[in-house]
Amino acid sequence: MRFGVNYTPRVGWFHSWLDFDVDALRSDFEQIASLELDHVRIFPLWHLIQPNRGMLRAAGIEAVGTAVDVAAEFGLDVNVDALQGHLSSFDFLPSWLTTWHGRNLFTDPVALAGEEAYVRALGEVLTGRPNVMGLTLGNETNQFAARPHPSPHEITAAEAEAWLVRLLGAAREERPGGLVTHAAYDATWYDERQPFVPAHAAEHGDETIVHSWVFNGAAQRHGGLGTGSVRHAEYLSQLAAAWHRDPARRVWLQEVGVPTTVVEPRDAVEFLERTVRHATDVANLSGVTWWCSHDVARDLLDFPPVEYDLGLVDEHGRVKPTGRAFAALARELRAAPSPAPSPVALVLDDAVPYRHACAPGGGFFEAWMRVAERDGRGPQVVLGSRRHDEQLLAGRGVERLLEVEVGAPAATTVASGGAATTLRP
Amino acid sequence: MRFGVNYTPRVGWFHSWLDFDVDALRSDFEQIASLELDHVRIFPLWHLIQPNRGMLRAAGIEAVGTAVDVAAEFGLDVNVDALQGHLSSFDFLPSWLTTWHGRNLFTDPVALAGEEAYVRALGEVLTGRPNVMGLTLGNETNQFAARPHPSPHEITAAEAEAWLVRLLGAAREERPGGLVTHAAYDATWYDERQPFVPAHAAEHGDETIVHSWVFNGAAQRHGGLGTGSVRHAEYLSQLAAAWHRDPARRVWLQEVGVPTTVVEPRDAVEFLERTVRHATDVANLSGVTWWCSHDVARDLLDFPPVEYDLGLVDEHGRVKPTGRAFAALARELRAAPSPAPSPVALVLDDAVPYRHACAPGGGFFEAWMRVAERDGRGPQVVLGSRRHDEQLLAGRGVERLLEVEVGAPAATTVASGGAATTLRP
Repeated sequence: MRFGVNYTPRVGWFHSWLDFDVDALRSDFEQIASLELDHVRIFPLWHLIQPNRGMLRAAGIEAVGTAVDVAAEFGLDVNVDALQGHLSSFDFLPSWLTTWHGRNLFTDPVALAGEEAYVRALGEVLTGRPNVMGLTLGNETNQFAARPHPSPHEITAAEAEAWLVRLLGAAREERPGGLVTHAAYDATWYDERQPFVPAHAAEHGDETIVHSWVFNGAAQRHGGLGTGSVRHAEYLSQLAAAWHRDPARRVWLQEVGVPTTVVEPRDAVEFLERTVRHATDVANLSGVTWWCSHDVARDLLDFPPVEYDLGLVDEHGRVKPTGRAFAALARELRAAPSPAPSPVALVLDDAVPYRHACAPGGGFFEAWMRVAERDGRGPQVVLGSRRHDEQLLAGRGVERLLEVEVGAPAATTVASGGAATTLRP
Repeated sequence: MRFGVNYTPRVGWFHSWLDFDVDALRSDFEQIASLELDHVRIFPLWHLIQPNRGMLRAAGIEAVGTAVDVAAEFGLDVNVDALQGHLSSFDFLPSWLTTWHGRNLFTDPVALAGEEAYVRALGEVLTGRPNVMGLTLGNETNQFAARPHPSPHEITAAEAEAWLVRLLGAAREERPGGLVTHAAYDATWYDERQPFVPAHAAEHGDETIVHSWVFNGAAQRHGGLGTGSVRHAEYLSQLAAAWHRDPARRVWLQEVGVPTTVVEPRDAVEFLERTVRHATDVANLSGVTWWCSHDVARDLLDFPPVEYDLGLVDEHGRVKPTGRAFAALARELRAAPSPAPSPVALVLDDAVPYRHACAPGGGFFEAWMRVAERDGRGPQVVLGSRRHDEQLLAGRGVERLLEVEVGAPAATTVASGGAATTLRP
């Protein structure tokens, strides 16, 4: 089990790519390594490295390679995200894709050619660097694909998939080493408008990426320390795995954090501990990458309030209680034996539009939480369309299926007894 | 009379601010100085210097100061444009003003606070540098204020004026030295949708800025070497001056170039010569700043075709025939005596929406061109609302007013004889 952190530079946030400073990087990475962490996820800003479609700045690409090498000095592996794109409410699409040059990010052939060139250039600089953990296409690129984005690049699910195939293919051809993945925010599982669907998360890329943020309604509905909050990451990891065709496929909890706008600041450590313990009880979880390393400095303006307090380290470089707690968990859990899969699975009816039901407040979400609370362990999730695939179920260690009856949201019940199916061993 | 050039870095275009290279700058400025030019207009990219509203990058600001100092080594004065903003079809608004942070550039108090901080920071670094010619608020900022911009920040004329007052005031308080100006593209005079109106150009800032581009319909309608093309800069300069309340106010032809998409490449030198000679025949013209110094390199993609051939120097550093021609004109005309104002003025009926009539193909435009052709010199322009202001007319040297009868566009006639008014001397 890997434990790492999404690296948010202490000085200058991601704008620090404009003032690339190896000493600052060294100082931050040294501190991250001191928290017992084994990897960082880093975010070059796309529009700075490829400000023109035909201009892949050598110094920009080289800085990414240097950042990887500096991480190696401290024993840290590095995952590099490519198409940023979007970070903490700010969009950074290059000017060759906006306004007068407005092109659909996912379907326009010229846009695709540019993106592919960028992904290849990053892949090339990463290749052969031994501490490269992997390459992710970009941070939550599905944000651009639908509302509520203010100016979405609208596409169909088939177009979303074609985009993934093309860019993941390009990344793989460059062989950066390690994982080739793509990342989506939870609209993929929760929002019917989203053209990037769960099957894309579960069938493309080397692992299934999950980003868990309880400001999505979970904490507002369940309270900061409620089951629906501290098991949200666990739930989303189980939910995502429902689309796995390969029982051995791994889920990477690539982003999870404690938003102290919806979790009481005094509960932050407990939220973190419970969240991480629950999540690491998911069989096949490959790792937890906390968001984030360093608080956003208060003199940087216009961030949503939540963003100023997500770091394990504060803006002055002091480790926060959450930092110490995450370090202790990493030390304890890294070497723990892998958990056996939960033998219980809740059946998700995927014959109907299911995403609203899966979101916090939805019938399936709430039912799953009740089972987890009752059993003390979150169940797996099995798609209704695959409930008779005995080989798959056996591979996943599912022994008992629970039905969910979704009536009015408040009346959702978990069937048990007569309605439950017990699989033959 | 000043002769200068809009500086488009030979290597990396304006993206070269990302790889600030004093040697490259020195090489470009040396070549510009060798063309007998006395000033450059430079364009820092706003989003790189102020990537967060609260972050004015010291290195970014310092680079602007250094660029000014390098220009001084070659005897060049420098005008700095602030809010880029927009350049050659590409928009570069910082992410704190777009999508999720979408704010009206001209009216939102938070946006204004950020812009003012930026203008002040630039003003501060320019102050005390003796070769600073001036500061312009930004390149054609009016582009953002209306259609045809794809996502305009719509405002009223009063809001446009309030924005100018605030930011010009901030720039003046910083006393960068020399001129404090603002720049608009020709929609200000030609397009009824544009909230930045001629009076704003003529009454705010130390000089009236004119950008003359014949790809706006002038060359398409009149031919590359037609009167409507080679007198376009002259016309626009005379038109702008119609709103001057101070007869001594100067017009700066801050952008003019030869777009070889609408002017035959073989006619480029002749276009340049005729354009510059006509324009410098406008009394009160303070200078001509050619667009641009260096061709956009062909390996930079997605520019409109016109942009690759506007330089006086090609992408390999070779001076083009237009470069030699502009240098010769600068040498000849810099010391020429100021022309007396044309004693003839055409009356523009500003009691009605007049901007369409002023645009290429419009009744007023075409009438002015016919008078210029007939007389061999372009007339001044007097607003109908001020035609009886004898003091103003005397100050401007206007001795004879010509009426324009605008019927159907094709039937526009310039009245003469009986309909003409001869002013008393």
